Amino acid sequence: MAGKISFSSDYTKGAHPRILQRLTETNYEQIDGYGTDDYCKSAADKIRKVCAAPEADVFFLVGGTQTNQTIIDMLLEPYEGVVAAQTGHVAAHEAGAIEFSGHKVLTVPSLPRKSTGSAESDESGSAASGSHRAVYSDQVGKISAAEVKKLIDDFYADDNHEHMVFPGAVYISHPTEYGTLYSKAELEELSKVCKEYDIPLFLDGARLGYGLMSKRTDVTIEDIARLVDVFYIGGTKVGALFGEAVVFPHKVPTRHPVPIIKQHGALLAKGWLLGLMFDTLFTDNLYFDISANAIEMAELLRKGLEEKGYQIYIDSPTNQQFIVMENNRLQELSEHVRYGFWEKFDDTHTVIRLATDWATTREDIDTLMSFL
Amino acid sequence: MAGKISFSSDYTKGAHPRILQRLTETNYEQIDGYGTDDYCKSAADKIRKVCAAPEADVFFLVGGTQTNQTIIDMLLEPYEGVVAAQTGHVAAHEAGAIEFSGHKVLTVPSLPRKSTGSAESDESGSAASGSHRAVYSDQVGKISAAEVKKLIDDFYADDNHEHMVFPGAVYISHPTEYGTLYSKAELEELSKVCKEYDIPLFLDGARLGYGLMSKRTDVTIEDIARLVDVFYIGGTKVGALFGEAVVFPHKVPTRHPVPIIKQHGALLAKGWLLGLMFDTLFTDNLYFDISANAIEMAELLRKGLEEKGYQIYIDSPTNQQFIVMENNRLQELSEHVRYGFWEKFDDTHTVIRLATDWATTREDIDTLMSFL
Amino acid sequence: MAGKISFSSDYTKGAHPRILQRLTETNYEQIDGYGTDDYCKSAADKIRKVCAAPEADVFFLVGGTQTNQTIIDMLLEPYEGVVAAQTGHVAAHEAGAIEFSGHKVLTVPSLPRKSTGSAESDESGSAASGSHRAVYSDQVGKISAAEVKKLIDDFYADDNHEHMVFPGAVYISHPTEYGTLYSKAELEELSKVCKEYDIPLFLDGARLGYGLMSKRTDVTIEDIARLVDVFYIGGTKVGALFGEAVVFPHKVPTRHPVPIIKQHGALLAKGWLLGLMFDTLFTDNLYFDISANAIEMAELLRKGLEEKGYQIYIDSPTNQQFIVMENNRLQELSEHVRYGFWEKFDDTHTVIRLATDWATTREDIDTLMSFL
Amino acid sequence: MAGKISFSSDYTKGAHPRILQRLTETNYEQIDGYGTDDYCKSAADKIRKVCAAPEADVFFLVGGTQTNQTIIDMLLEPYEGVVAAQTGHVAAHEAGAIEFSGHKVLTVPSLPRKSTGSAESDESGSAASGSHRAVYSDQVGKISAAEVKKLIDDFYADDNHEHMVFPGAVYISHPTEYGTLYSKAELEELSKVCKEYDIPLFLDGARLGYGLMSKRTDVTIEDIARLVDVFYIGGTKVGALFGEAVVFPHKVPTRHPVPIIKQHGALLAKGWLLGLMFDTLFTDNLYFDISANAIEMAELLRKGLEEKGYQIYIDSPTNQQFIVMENNRLQELSEHVRYGFWEKFDDTHTVIRLATDWATTREDIDTLMSFL
Repeated sequence: MAGKISFSSDYTKGAHPRILQRLTETNYEQIDGYGTDDYCKSAADKIRKVCAAPEADVFFLVGGTQTNQTIIDMLLEPYEGVVAAQTGHVAAHEAGAIEFSGHKVLTVPSLPRKSTGSAESDESGSAASGSHRAVYSDQVGKISAAEVKKLIDDFYADDNHEHMVFPGAVYISHPTEYGTLYSKAELEELSKVCKEYDIPLFLDGARLGYGLMSKRTDVTIEDIARLVDVFYIGGTKVGALFGEAVVFPHKVPTRHPVPIIKQHGALLAKGWLLGLMFDTLFTDNLYFDISANAIEMAELLRKGLEEKGYQIYIDSPTNQQFIVMENNRLQELSEHVRYGFWEKFDDTHTVIRLATDWATTREDIDTLMSFL
Repeated sequence: MAGKISFSSDYTKGAHPRILQRLTETNYEQIDGYGTDDYCKSAADKIRKVCAAPEADVFFLVGGTQTNQTIIDMLLEPYEGVVAAQTGHVAAHEAGAIEFSGHKVLTVPSLPRKSTGSAESDESGSAASGSHRAVYSDQVGKISAAEVKKLIDDFYADDNHEHMVFPGAVYISHPTEYGTLYSKAELEELSKVCKEYDIPLFLDGARLGYGLMSKRTDVTIEDIARLVDVFYIGGTKVGALFGEAVVFPHKVPTRHPVPIIKQHGALLAKGWLLGLMFDTLFTDNLYFDISANAIEMAELLRKGLEEKGYQIYIDSPTNQQFIVMENNRLQELSEHVRYGFWEKFDDTHTVIRLATDWATTREDIDTLMSFL
Repeated sequence: MAGKISFSSDYTKGAHPRILQRLTETNYEQIDGYGTDDYCKSAADKIRKVCAAPEADVFFLVGGTQTNQTIIDMLLEPYEGVVAAQTGHVAAHEAGAIEFSGHKVLTVPSLPRKSTGSAESDESGSAASGSHRAVYSDQVGKISAAEVKKLIDDFYADDNHEHMVFPGAVYISHPTEYGTLYSKAELEELSKVCKEYDIPLFLDGARLGYGLMSKRTDVTIEDIARLVDVFYIGGTKVGALFGEAVVFPHKVPTRHPVPIIKQHGALLAKGWLLGLMFDTLFTDNLYFDISANAIEMAELLRKGLEEKGYQIYIDSPTNQQFIVMENNRLQELSEHVRYGFWEKFDDTHTVIRLATDWATTREDIDTLMSFL
Repeated sequence: MAGKISFSSDYTKGAHPRILQRLTETNYEQIDGYGTDDYCKSAADKIRKVCAAPEADVFFLVGGTQTNQTIIDMLLEPYEGVVAAQTGHVAAHEAGAIEFSGHKVLTVPSLPRKSTGSAESDESGSAASGSHRAVYSDQVGKISAAEVKKLIDDFYADDNHEHMVFPGAVYISHPTEYGTLYSKAELEELSKVCKEYDIPLFLDGARLGYGLMSKRTDVTIEDIARLVDVFYIGGTKVGALFGEAVVFPHKVPTRHPVPIIKQHGALLAKGWLLGLMFDTLFTDNLYFDISANAIEMAELLRKGLEEKGYQIYIDSPTNQQFIVMENNRLQELSEHVRYGFWEKFDDTHTVIRLATDWATTREDIDTLMSFL
C-alpha cells in the first residue's frame, strides 16, 4: 500500500475532503433509505439546474458497470442490442454484464489503423500539440454518426433483419476509454441520426468532468443534456468515494425505475450517501473545479513528457495520457511509480497509461517527472 | 431530514466513527482497485480468524439484494432454484432479483398461524419475558430442517421432477426478517439435511451481529462458519457505510468469482473502501461490541414497552421490536418519532417496527419512551 | 412400444388422418419458411373467424412450455411477474422456464382443502353426477377474480411494493391441469379485474378443445377471444402432431414479435407445417368435432367407473378423469393398461389419471373397462 | 404457394416419403412422451453406431436456433462466451438468442477480403473447378485454429481478463453459412487447440449431410464424433419435417440435461416424432443417400452455371451455390424461379443463392437451367 506514487488510474484515492467532512457532519442524522431522502432531492435539483434540464429524472447508482447494465436494460426492448465502439467499455471490459442482462452489443469498429512506431498522418485535422506527433490521433475510440447510420441502414436493408438483433440504443463514452472527446458537432450528428431512427443515445460519463474541463472541447454539460437521451456524471473517478449520477434529461423510459434498479443490485440502502456526495460535488462548482485540476496536471505532465522526448501514444486531451516506453526504462520506473500497463507496443517497448485526477498536485507531477 | 428521532430501521445512520476516521486518514493513500488491495486482504484474514475458517474465500460486496443475487447465482445450476421461507427476503422483497438472474425461489411456508390479538400458546417452549405474551413466538420467519427435507423428498419422489425446478440451495436469514433466530441445534439439523442431499446452505447475515449478540442465542460465528456453505456478515446495518462480507468457509463454488461478481454489477472499483471498513469492524472486537449495544438498547426498549402494557407482536430476541398500537395513539406518536410501518393489525390497530442499531443511545430510548 | 392400451395422457398418438393426408399431399410443394406462407395465413384467417376476432394477431408455436414462456415474456415488463395458481403449469411443471426468462410466478393458492377419502361438501354448488361424490369438486385448480384482486390490492397497499414483484399478467389454464373449467361468469369477473388494473389476462388452452366441448361449460371460443388478452389453441393434445396457435384478439403487445419468438427458440423453419395443421383443424369444424369425441369417451368412461364403484378423485368435466385405486388392483391393471400416476392417496391407495383424446374409440373404453 | 419452382433454400419441402410413411404407420401407436420412447432409443443407437461413439449422449431437439442456444448454454459457465466466426449463425442470424440466454458471442473475423468482381488469387490452394474462378474461395466463412488460439492467448495475456468475457467454447458450422467445409486437418487443428485450453468444440451440422457427401471433403461423421465435444445432425434441412439430433460423443456436460432442454422450450411433448424421423434417416443409409442427391444436383447446377458463363460468387463444395446476376436478368428469372437473395453485388448486379436439397431432381435442374 505504502510508498510508491501512483498514476495508474483515477480511482486510487478516497474522496474530496468536503465530502468526507459532510459525511462526518451528517453521520448521526437519521435519513430515509433507498434514495427517497432530501439529499438526493437536493443533488438532483442541482444537477437539473446545471444541465438546464428542469424535467430530468435523476438516479444515483453505485458503479460504472452496474450503471451501464441498468441503463441499457432500461433502454432496450428484449430483441434489441446496443450499438457501441468495439473498444467501448460495455463491449470489452464489463465481463459480459450487458449479455448477462440479455442484450447483444453491436459493435462499430473504432480504432483507426495504426502507423506503427511513427507519426501518423492526421486525417482528422486535429492538431497534436507541439512537434511530438502521437501514434494515434485524438479521434481514436470514437464512433461516428456515419458509421452508426450505416449499421442501422444495413440492418433494415437486410431482408432477414427480423432474425437479427435490432439496433436499439447507441452507447458512447465521453471521454472515451482512450481519453478522447467528441466535438459538439459530432454529438449533434450522432443525436440527429438517433432521433431520425428513434433510437436513444446514451453517453457514459464515468470521467465526464475530465471531458468537460478539457482545454480542447467545445461541449458543455448543457449540450450533453440537450443532445442525449441519458447520460451519467461519474463520481467514482471524480471526487466521490463512489457513485454515478444518471440523468434522463427528458424522461426515464420505464414506469417503474426503482424495481429495475433493485433487480440489478443497484439500489443502495443508504442512498443518501450518494445524494450527499453529489450534492457536495454540485455545490460551489466543486465538480468542475476539481476536474479542471486533473486537466491542468495532465497538461503539465504532457508538456514534461514531450520535453523529455517521449513518444506520445494517443493524443489525449483529457486526464489520461499514454506514452510508449522502452522496457528497460520502464523497469526502472516501476521501482518508484505505479502506472497503468496499457499494451505491448513491440518487443522492446510498452504502452503505459498515466492518469491524473481531482487530487493530483504539482508536487506529484514533479515527483513523477523526476523518475522519467 | 431534521427533527424527529427515528427507530424506523437500522440503516438510517452513517458509519461508526472509527470507520470515518480511517477513511479520512487513508484518503490520499493510493490503493489498487477491485478488491485486490491489502486492506481487503487484512479484513479477510481477520474474518477468517474470527470464524476459525482458515481456508475461507472472502469477498466484499456492496448491498444485500446484490449479495443475495450474486451468491445464489454462484451456488445454483441453471435448472435449480433456491429454497427459502416464503417470508424470506429473497422471496418477497428483492423486486425479483433472483428471478432476474434466472432462478426460481422455492418457498416453504414459514409463518405459524396467528392467534389474533391474544397470547399464543407457545409451542416452541421459548419463554417470552414477563407477562406480555407476543402474538407471534420467536419461531416466526424460520424454516425447519424437516420442512426442507420434505420439500426435497417430495421433489425427488415426483415422477415428473425433471420437469420441475430442482432444489439447489437453501437460503435462511439469521436474524430473520422478523428478528428471530435459529438455535445451534436447528442450524445443525439444517446443515445435516443439506449435506445429506449435497445442497449448499446459505445464511443471509445482513443483521448477523445483532443475532450473534442476542441474549437468547447459543450460536457463534464459528458455528455458522462450520455449519453453512456460505454466509455474509452484514455491514450496511451494523456500523459500516455500506458493505457485506461474503464468506465461503470451504471454497467458493466457481473457478472465476470475479467476473461473476462484475456481471452482477457488484464489483466496486474502490474495493478497498469495503476492505477498510470491515478491517475496522473486525479490529478490537468492534463489530461485536456495537452489535451488543443494539441488543442492550432493544432489551431496554422491550422492557419499557412491556411495562407500559404494549402488546408485543413478535417475540423478537434481536434489535427489531414489533408492537401493536392503537391507530389514534400511533398518529400522535408519528408527530415525534419515525417508526417502521409493518402491517395492519385490525381496523383500529397497526403493527409497527422499532429498530435499535449500533449507535442507539440510552437517551434515544428515553426520548422514545417519553412519547409512547 | 407395442401392446398395452394407454390412457396415460392425451399426447400419445400422432395426428388426425386428415392432417397426415395433407402433409403427404403438400410434401413437395415448395413453401416459404418461418410462418410467412399462405397456409399460416389461411389458418390464421379461419381462427380469426371462429373467434369472431377479425383484428387478432395469430402466431403458431411448437409446444406448450415454449408458448407459455414466450407469451409471458411478451406480456411482462422486466419488473413484473405473472399471477397463477400454485398448481398452474407455469408455476409447477415447466422446469423454471418462466424464471429462466427473468420473471417470477406470483402464486395464488388454488387447491381447496381435501376431505380425505370421503365426499366433500360441495360448496360450489356444482353437481357431481350420480351418487359418487368426488374427493375434489370441479372447482379445483382454478383461481378466482377475488383472489387475483386481493393479490393485486395487497401488492399496491404495501408501502414497499417497489421492492417487490409487480403483478403484470394473469395466467389461467382452461381446462386446468385438473381438467376443470371456468364458467363464463368467472371468466368475465377475471377479465373485469384485469381490465380494472390494466393487467393482461392470458388463457393457456393446451387442451382448449376439450374444454369447449365439455357438456358442463357455457364458454365459447368467442367468449374467450372477447374476454382475454391472449390465449392459445392447443394442437399437440388435440389432433395435431404438435403446435399451439397463439391468438392475441386485440393486438400483440410488441412491435416485433418475430425476433422475440426466435430468441425463445420457438420460430419453426418450416412454419407452414403448423399453418397446414391448424388450417386442417379449423376446416369443417374438425377441431371441435374431434374434441367432442374425447368428451363423449370421457363421459362413457366416467359412467363406467361410477357404476363399478370407483372413488372419483376430481369431478372433472373434461377429458381427464381421476380415480382412487387400491394399490393391489392397480398392480393388476398395470399389466394391461398404461395410466397416468397422479399422486399417492394413502398407504394403500393411489390416484391415477385416465385421459381420453381425439382418437379414443368406444372399443378402447370397453377394453379399459374390462380390466377395471 | 403454387407455381414457381424454388431454389431459395433447402427447407422448402416436407419430409422424405419413408418418414411420412412411418408417421402414418405408427400414428395410433401410443407412445410415451418427452423422448423417453423406444424410437428415440433406437435412433440414438443407430447414431452412436454410425458415429462410432458408443458412449455418446444423444438428444433430439426441434430447430437450429433452439439447438444452438441450448447447447451453448449447456457448455458455458456464466462468465464465458462462445467463440465464433463473425458470419456464424449464432453471431449474426439468431435474433440474439445466445445473448438472451446470457452469453456473449466472441467473434473471429472470417471473411477474406473480396477481390471485387474478378477472380481472386486463391491462397488456400483449393482448386475452383474449371475456368470460372469464384469471387470468394472455398475458405470463406471458416475460422482457423490459429485465429482461435490467438483470441484465447490474447485473452489470457490481458491483465484485465477477469473483467472480460472468458472464451468458453468454440462454435463452427460445417458446412458453413457459405456452404464451405473444414478439412480433416483443419478440424484436427481446431480440436487440438480446444483440448489444449480445455474448451469444448461445438460443430453446428444443420446441413451436416451435405457436408459429409461433398465430393471435396475428407471428413467423415466418425471424424467429427472423434474431434468435437458436441455436434448436431441436421434433420430440418435434410429430409425430416424438422429436428436436429444433438450428439455429445463423450458426455453431456450437465447432470440434468432434461430440465435445461425444457427451460429452453426445446423438449417436444411427442418426442418420439423426432426419434422416429431420425430412426428412419439412419436406417439403410438414407441420411447419406439423400444428402448425396443434393450434392449431385448441386454439381449439375454448378456445371450448367459455369457453362453459361455465370460468375460464381463463392466456390461452395456443397448444396448451396452462389452466383452474381445482372439485375435485369434477375428480374426475368424471378418470374419463373424463386431464389435466395444473398446480397447486393454492385449497382447493377446481385448475389443470389440457389440451393438443392434431398429431393431435388434432374428435371428441377433442367427447369432452372432453362430459365437461366
